[in-house]
Amino acid sequence: MALIRRIHGWLGDANPAPPEGIGDDCAVWKPGPGVGWELVTVDGVCYGRHFDDSVSAWDAGRKLLARNISDIAAMGGEPVRGVVALWLAGATDLEWLHAFYSGIRDCALKYGVRIVGGDVAEAPAGVFLADLTLIGRCAVEPVRRGVAREGDSIWVTGALGGSLLGKHFRFEPRISEGAWLARRAGVKAMMDISDGLAKDLVSLVGGRMVELDPDAIPVSAEAVRFAAGSGRDPLYHALSDGEDYELAFVMDAKADPNGFKREWNACFDLPVACVGRVVSGSPLEHGLPAIRLAGGKPWTYGSGYEHLG
Amino acid sequence: MALIRRIHGWLGDANPAPPEGIGDDCAVWKPGPGVGWELVTVDGVCYGRHFDDSVSAWDAGRKLLARNISDIAAMGGEPVRGVVALWLAGATDLEWLHAFYSGIRDCALKYGVRIVGGDVAEAPAGVFLADLTLIGRCAVEPVRRGVAREGDSIWVTGALGGSLLGKHFRFEPRISEGAWLARRAGVKAMMDISDGLAKDLVSLVGGRMVELDPDAIPVSAEAVRFAAGSGRDPLYHALSDGEDYELAFVMDAKADPNGFKREWNACFDLPVACVGRVVSGSPLEHGLPAIRLAGGKPWTYGSGYEHLG
Repeated sequence: MALIRRIHGWLGDANPAPPEGIGDDCAVWKPGPGVGWELVTVDGVCYGRHFDDSVSAWDAGRKLLARNISDIAAMGGEPVRGVVALWLAGATDLEWLHAFYSGIRDCALKYGVRIVGGDVAEAPAGVFLADLTLIGRCAVEPVRRGVAREGDSIWVTGALGGSLLGKHFRFEPRISEGAWLARRAGVKAMMDISDGLAKDLVSLVGGRMVELDPDAIPVSAEAVRFAAGSGRDPLYHALSDGEDYELAFVMDAKADPNGFKREWNACFDLPVACVGRVVSGSPLEHGLPAIRLAGGKPWTYGSGYEHLG
Repeated sequence: MALIRRIHGWLGDANPAPPEGIGDDCAVWKPGPGVGWELVTVDGVCYGRHFDDSVSAWDAGRKLLARNISDIAAMGGEPVRGVVALWLAGATDLEWLHAFYSGIRDCALKYGVRIVGGDVAEAPAGVFLADLTLIGRCAVEPVRRGVAREGDSIWVTGALGGSLLGKHFRFEPRISEGAWLARRAGVKAMMDISDGLAKDLVSLVGGRMVELDPDAIPVSAEAVRFAAGSGRDPLYHALSDGEDYELAFVMDAKADPNGFKREWNACFDLPVACVGRVVSGSPLEHGLPAIRLAGGKPWTYGSGYEHLG
C-alpha cells in the first residue's frame, strides 16, 4: 500500500483522479457517448510466489484470468478482452505451457473473454511469470469503493475463509451477481475480497468504522477445517485469509434489506449475508482498528494476508 | 515466432481472427457505433535483458512506455491510457524506482497518455521487470500489416541502423506520422521497425517477395559508425540491427509517389524514402529469402536481432 501511494505521487499529472486513475478494482472511463463505461485491470501470477509445482499449469493459467475477471465483476462490469504478457526462461516445458494456456482458454471461453494479444519475452533463468490485462464494459455506472455513511449495511456473497484448501484456484468470479448489484439503486460501494474481509473493508467503506456481527459472518467449511489445524478461531480465517473472490458491498441505510434478500434469492443460488454496518467513530492511529465486533471489541488484524506494497 | 504460433493454436476459439486477435502491432476493435476504433498492445522491460546498470532508470521507464506508443502509432492510432504491472524483489532501491516512474510519467505527459492503473507484485530475488499495456484509439480504420500486391512500393521514415548507440532508448514514436499515413487512401499496410527492416518486411508484405534498392535505404550515421567497429557493411546494420522504431509502410502501385512526397515534406521534417517494391516470385523454403537487392542478389539475414519466440 505504501509503495502504491508513492507510485501515485511519482506519476503526478500523468495519473488522473479515480475512478479513471489508480485507486479502485479497475480504472473506469466512458469511451464515447452511448456506449457505456469501459474498465481495465491488470494482475499477474509468478512461479514460486503465486503457485508452485503442487499446482497444475491449467489451474495457474485459469487463475491468472479469473482473478482479473473478479476485479471487473467487483465493479459490476462484464469482462471482454484480455492480453497476456509472458516472461519465461529458455528451459520452460512446452507441455506445461500448453496446459497453462489451456487454463486461460477454458476460463476465457466460459466467461466470454477474448484473448486478443500478448507478448512473449525472455526472463532470467528460473523465472516464469505472466501478466494479464483485462478490459471490460459496463452499461451502467460501475460501482466504486469507499462510498459509505453511518447506518449503511455491509454485505458479502458466498462463504469466507480457508481459501488455501482449494478455492483460491477454483473460485468462480461473481460476474452475474456484480452486474445485478450494479443495477440496484441502494448498492453504493462494492469490491471483491482478495486480502480478507477485515483488510478489504477499510477500502470498501473509505476508512469509516464498521461494526461486524460475528454470528452473521458466513464462515466457510474450509475455514472451520483450517482452524482445526491452526488453533485459531474459524472467524479469524473467514475475516483474514483472503483470496475469497467473493463480493463485499455497501447498501444504503434507506434500502429495504428484506426486499433485497428476497429478490436476490429469486435470482441466485449463492447465499448473501448482511454482516454488519457502518457506525459512528473514526479509525484510530494508522487507520486501525476500523472494525469492531458487535459488543464493542476491536478487531485485531493479526497476521492476515498482506500484499506486497 | 514459433512459440507465438503455438500459443495462437493453444488459445483456439478464445483468440479471434486479426485484426481483433493476435497477429498485428495491436489488437483492434470498434467499441460501439460512432466512436472509431480501439487498439491495445502490451510490451515489457526486464533488468538484465532490456537494460542494465549502464542505463538510467529514467531511460528504462521511458522506453517501457515509448515502445508501446510506437506499436499504437504503427497502426495510425493515438495512445490514450496505460496500466503498468511491476514485478520487483524486496531490495529494489526506491530512488531508482522513483526515476523509473519519472521516465514513464515524462513520456506519458509528452504524448498525452494517462497511466490509469497497475499492479505491484513481489518477484524472485534479483528480478525487476515491468509490463505496460497501452490502449489507444483511431478515428479512421487502423492500418494493418500484410496487405501488399506486386508493384506496390515500400517506404520507411527516418534513418535506420546503429540504434544501440542511443536511439533504442531515445527514439520518438511516430504518432503524428502514423496518424497522417492512416488517413491516406494509398497506404495499405504499416508497422513499426523493431526487429530490423529485413525481418519486419516479411510481416509487412505478408510473405511476398520484395526487391530493395540498396542506394535508396536511409542508412543512419550510427549504422556507419557501428560498421566501422563491426567490419560489416553499414547497409547490413540498417537492415538488421532493429529497434529503429521508424515506420515501414506499403503504398499502392497506383498512388503517385511524387505527390505523396511533396505532401509529406509539407507536413514533416522527418525524411521519408521509397526503398523498394513488391515483385513477383514467392519466398523460398522457411520463408527466406523474401528479399532481394536490386540486381537479383538475395538478402541473407545473417545475425539480425531475433526476439525470443
